[in-house]
Parts: sequence; structure tokens; C-alpha cells
Amino acid sequence: MSYNIADLQRLKEFYEHQLLKDTVPFWFPRSIDETYGGYLFMRDQDGTLIDDDKAVWIQGRAAWLLSTLYNTVEQKPEWLAGAKSGIDFLNNHCFDTDGQMFFHVTREGKPIRKRRYYFSETFAVIAHAAYAKASGDESAAEKARYLFGKCIEYATTPGLLPAKFADTRPSKGIGVPMIMINTAQQLRDTIGDPRCDEWIMRWIEDIKRDFVKDDIQCVMEQVAPDGSIIDHIDGRTLNPGHAIEGAWFILHEAQYRNNDPELIALGCKMLDYMWQRGWDKEYGGILYFRDVYGKPVQEYWQDMKFWWPQNETIIATLLAYTLTGKEKYAQWHKMIHDYAYDKFNDKVNGEWFGYLHRDGRVAQTAKGNLFKGPFHLPRQEWYCMQILKNYLK
Amino acid sequence: MSYNIADLQRLKEFYEHQLLKDTVPFWFPRSIDETYGGYLFMRDQDGTLIDDDKAVWIQGRAAWLLSTLYNTVEQKPEWLAGAKSGIDFLNNHCFDTDGQMFFHVTREGKPIRKRRYYFSETFAVIAHAAYAKASGDESAAEKARYLFGKCIEYATTPGLLPAKFADTRPSKGIGVPMIMINTAQQLRDTIGDPRCDEWIMRWIEDIKRDFVKDDIQCVMEQVAPDGSIIDHIDGRTLNPGHAIEGAWFILHEAQYRNNDPELIALGCKMLDYMWQRGWDKEYGGILYFRDVYGKPVQEYWQDMKFWWPQNETIIATLLAYTLTGKEKYAQWHKMIHDYAYDKFNDKVNGEWFGYLHRDGRVAQTAKGNLFKGPFHLPRQEWYCMQILKNYLK
Repeated sequence: MSYNIADLQRLKEFYEHQLLKDTVPFWFPRSIDETYGGYLFMRDQDGTLIDDDKAVWIQGRAAWLLSTLYNTVEQKPEWLAGAKSGIDFLNNHCFDTDGQMFFHVTREGKPIRKRRYYFSETFAVIAHAAYAKASGDESAAEKARYLFGKCIEYATTPGLLPAKFADTRPSKGIGVPMIMINTAQQLRDTIGDPRCDEWIMRWIEDIKRDFVKDDIQCVMEQVAPDGSIIDHIDGRTLNPGHAIEGAWFILHEAQYRNNDPELIALGCKMLDYMWQRGWDKEYGGILYFRDVYGKPVQEYWQDMKFWWPQNETIIATLLAYTLTGKEKYAQWHKMIHDYAYDKFNDKVNGEWFGYLHRDGRVAQTAKGNLFKGPFHLPRQEWYCMQILKNYLK
Repeated sequence: MSYNIADLQRLKEFYEHQLLKDTVPFWFPRSIDETYGGYLFMRDQDGTLIDDDKAVWIQGRAAWLLSTLYNTVEQKPEWLAGAKSGIDFLNNHCFDTDGQMFFHVTREGKPIRKRRYYFSETFAVIAHAAYAKASGDESAAEKARYLFGKCIEYATTPGLLPAKFADTRPSKGIGVPMIMINTAQQLRDTIGDPRCDEWIMRWIEDIKRDFVKDDIQCVMEQVAPDGSIIDHIDGRTLNPGHAIEGAWFILHEAQYRNNDPELIALGCKMLDYMWQRGWDKEYGGILYFRDVYGKPVQEYWQDMKFWWPQNETIIATLLAYTLTGKEKYAQWHKMIHDYAYDKFNDKVNGEWFGYLHRDGRVAQTAKGNLFKGPFHLPRQEWYCMQILKNYLK
């Protein structure tokens, strides 16, 4: 099969409809915390609040989303005001005295937990950058650039943050170069920064050199510092949806660089390898974890279907299709799109369930918690709209 | 239904057979590491090694098991030698220079990870105490008593170990008084220690006062320092199998104290409350997590069936039956026993699978990993033998 122009037009309209009539209205305006600022996202399937705590990652991600909608879809004042609420909450409550950000705070903004990595910071970068573009607020732009510099420092200075593991068996994860690529891309796409181009290519080179294994057709989730496979349970654990997210970050870069053929080849290869590893031939959808050699995976939820690997795969397959025109990618896109909107989308209350059993039954009903909020799904719907809008031009 | 003497005799023989002909032979002698000492327990269903790392908790637990078999079942020289291998590995490789123990080490004993709690230490206490009794080694007895003192210090000195959470919303878990009760009971039952009786009663009092909620018929997994329920996702999360394990530690104490009626009532009440919360009426077995108010549980594996909650419930129901003679407990024991030996026991290779989906299908096949090894299952089979032997006398 392939997609013709009418198919792609329909797909664009579908994503636009879902984003603006189903996903965004589930979260807004009710999640804006009019009392303390920021957002109240920990909600059950029908929108009932199950916890008023705030996950700092998701506060930043949502401020990014609202700013991005304002920048690219429509200049709605409530989106800009909503973004400002998140930005202010981040700045007033989510930084510790040592400059690091918290991970989890109370509704009022008191710290519950700080973690030993800096993903709160990367999401604060994209939030501030998109908000600076939307509002013209120069201090937000400065904050984005300053925090991006801090992230580079954390990413390149071993020992700057406390270690979780001893030095016996050093390892590095694909998560760091991935998140840094995407952070730099967002910064560049909104307010621009002279550091981005060079750093993006360095991090892509890291992934290509150390994580992509052509001999076994695989993208590793973690490796030794020299890129070798660590043949222990953790080192063997693959996260196909995550690697596929990395694939589309690289395809996005290919598109930015005038459809650079080497980057297209790299991104498509990563998608190919991890589709084979992650697609569930029995029930459909992308499985959470796999072992590189087929041994038992320790993480308990390894064969569940989470929402976000499906979102990332919908993006990656669509982008691979629009960049290469290969029928295979249209076919994969249709498979993952049909599966995901059938199984995850809540036809009664809107938005998606987050956690399905392997066979597609809903495992638990929360729409938002410490780890899920308005990010992967609305980003997918928004970005697929953009891909298709550009392609159809 | 109830159990008659012939039923109980058959049960005793069944547990003895399973322990000595099925469970122990799966692990030993093949898991003794003849090169570096300690044990190689990370094995797939057929016994194939999937990782040669060593989990420090399980090194201690296995040295306890082998010593206990030697002390109470038969004085087999290979059990004593096997126990010594684990004791030596713990002492040679599992302590950091600050006196704290590691959580995860390599086969050679180099540190991979240290954690912010002291469960490695509690298992080292019971290992050294049981081994001291088996071997007569006075230095092992001293080590057990010294480490027990350290555990009391950790348990009673806030701030002695680094905190995972900020001070905004202080909480305490039932895990600390539970593990300390059991550690003290094991120490007392093997080499004796004058501190045990008093500390055990204090920790039981902590559980009774702060974690057992009669108004809602529930045993909380964590509470605020004053015992109030923390109405946030983590604070609402119940772990029925864990609370039921706590119930039988208290029933064990009741038995030790000449069938103390108050302790019997407390243990049975905890079992009653958490059987109602945890027993899966649809598929059988004890579910992993529940929310106290029936809201969505965040932990992804919340409705899976793990091996150890079933083991703890088999013990608790049998002990409740032998202490009270109530038919209800015989019935519950038969339900959980029949379910668990049907679904978890691997009829081909022996031992139990660790991780089932809610409906009883095997989710992954490992018999051993960083968290599973020869402990909950052989302890259950051994302790049920002891309960029945005493009862039938």
C-alpha cells in the first residue's frame, strides 16, 4: 500500500481534529492552577483530579506545548496566558538553591524529590524558548539559553551530578544525546542559538558511532563508554519506542539540512531495526522492553503497551515516509496509527489511556500522573500536522 | 471446609517434598561460585545463567537458607560449606569502606550499586546468625550482633542515611518495622540476643498504632510520621502481600509468646483486611498493588501476580489456621496454596516462575535476577513444614 494526496490530506485533518477537539480540551482550561500557578495534571480517565502534586518535567512540557500551539497554530490569548502560568511556576518554585531543578513538587511548589539527572532542565529549556518566541519576553529567552548551557555542562562533565552507580562498570545511555538533540532543535526552531547546529551533529555522531549496531541490526539503549555491549541484564535491555523517538529526531535534522541523505539513511535504519525488535506481531503496537539476545527482561512491565512509544512510532514512520516515499513506511504508519487510535484513544472522555496490557486491555485508567501528562500525544498530533502541512505544500 | 489431621500431614509432606526435591535442587549445588565464592543465582527457567552479577540481599538470604536447612532439617556438610561460601563473599566483598553494604556487585565482588537503605544489612544479620549456630563460629555471631546494632541505629536515627525525598512531606514505611521484627526473631531463634524481645514489641506497637486502620479495615504501606494517611498517589498505594507478610511475623511472635491472644488478634486482623484488599476474585492469587480508595495505581505492574506475595499468604493463612482453628483460614490457605502451586510451580524444571500476568500467564521466565532468588519460596516451604511439625506434635 501507499498513501495518495487525499489520504495525506485526510490524515492531516484527523490529527488536527484530534489535537484541537479531543486532546487539548481534555487538559485545558481545567488544568491551569488559578491559585498557585502551573498545572494540575494528575487526573483519572474522566478528568477527576487524583493528586494535586506537580511533576516538574510535565510542567515544562505543557508550557512548551501551549507556547508552541500559540506560535504555530493560532495566537489564542488563553494559550499564551496558560504558558505563562507554567513558566512562572517553574521559575518561582522548581529550582533548588544549588541551581538544579526538582523532579516532583507539591501543588504549592514545595519540593518532594530531586533526581540525579537533568531532564527537568531540558524541558525547562524548550518551555522558555517557545514561550520567549510567543511572548517576546527577553528574560525567558535568556533563561532558555542559560539553562541550555547548564545542560551541556551536565552532559559533558562527568561527576558534576551525583552518580547512581559505582565506577566498576561504566555505561552511558542513548537518552542523553537524544534529549539534547531535541532540546537544541527546539531552541533553534524558536529563538535560535549559535551553539545548536554543532552540538546536534556531535550528539548524532555519538549515537551513530556507539549505539547503532549494524552487525546485529539494533539500537542499544545503553552501552559501555567505548560503545561495546554490556552483556548483563541492564546492558542488554532495549527500549524500541525510545530508539524510534531518537530515529525521528535524526530524520527531523535531515529535513532541516535539506533532506541530507546520510541522516535520512541513519534515521531510517534506526527505525527499521527497532520496528523489527519492538512491533508486536501478535497483538500490534510497540512493546516496552526487549532483550537484545531474547533473554528474559527484568523490568516487570516489559511486555505492556504504553502510550508514548506508539506516539513516537507514529511520528517516525510518517516522517520516514514523507522523506523517502517508501511504501513500507506508509504501511507501518498505517499499522501503528490504526492500532494506537483504536486501543488507546478514550472514545468517551477524550485523550488516551496510558497503560495497556500486551493484548490491548486497559491496565489502569489514569490520564495523568507523575509520568504522563499532555506531551507525547499532543506533540505527535501537532508534529504530524506540521509534517503533512509541509509535505502537501 | 476445614483441615483434618491427615490433610495436615499430607501438607507437611508436600512442603517437605517440594523444598527438598524441587526448590533446593534447582539452585544447589550449581549456584555455588567455586571461583569467587558466593552464589550465581541469575538464571532462566531451565537454570541457564543469564547474568553473573550478584544481588547482595540474595547472597545473604541464601546463606541464611543453607544454614537454616543445616540447623533444622539435616546436617549436610554441603549445606554448611555452601553457607560458608556466601558468608565469606559477604565479608570479603559486600561492605563499603564507610561500613555500609552494597546492593549489587559483580561476580568478582566489585561494587555496582549502593542504595539508601539497609536491607542488605538485615539479610546479613540473619545469614551470620544462622551460620554462627550451624558452624559454632563465634566471629559470625559477633558480626550478626554488631550488624543488628547498626540496623537499629539506621532505623532510629533520622538523617543517618541520605534521604531520597525532601522534608516537605515526611513519611514512613511499614517495611522498616517489619524487616526489623523478622531480623530480631531470626537472631533470637538462632544465637539469641538480649535486645530482641523488647525491640520486637516496640516495632509491633509501631505497626499497630500507625499502620493498621480499623475504620477502613486496611494496613497502610506508608503513612505520615503521626500515622495519618497521606492522600497522594504514593501514600494511597497498598501492598497487600507485604502487609500479609507483616501479619505472619506478628503471628510468629504470638506463637513465641505462648499464643498471646492480643498478638493473634492483631496478626489475624491484618491478614483479614489485606486478604479482602489483595485477593483477586476473578483469577485468584494476591494482586501486587491496590489504591486504598480504589483510584488508579501508578506502579505499572500493579495487577500482576508476583511469586512472593503468594508465598507470604500461604504462610500467613496456615499460621492463622493453626493458631485459631478457624475454618476461614483453612479455606483461604487451600485457595492460595492450590492457586500458587498450579500457576507458579514450573513442572518441567522445578522452582517457581516469578512474574505472571493477572490471568496467570507467565510474563517472563527468569527464576533468578536482581530481585528473585532462593528465599521467599524455600522459606515458605521450610516454615510451613515447621508450623505443621509443631502443630502435629
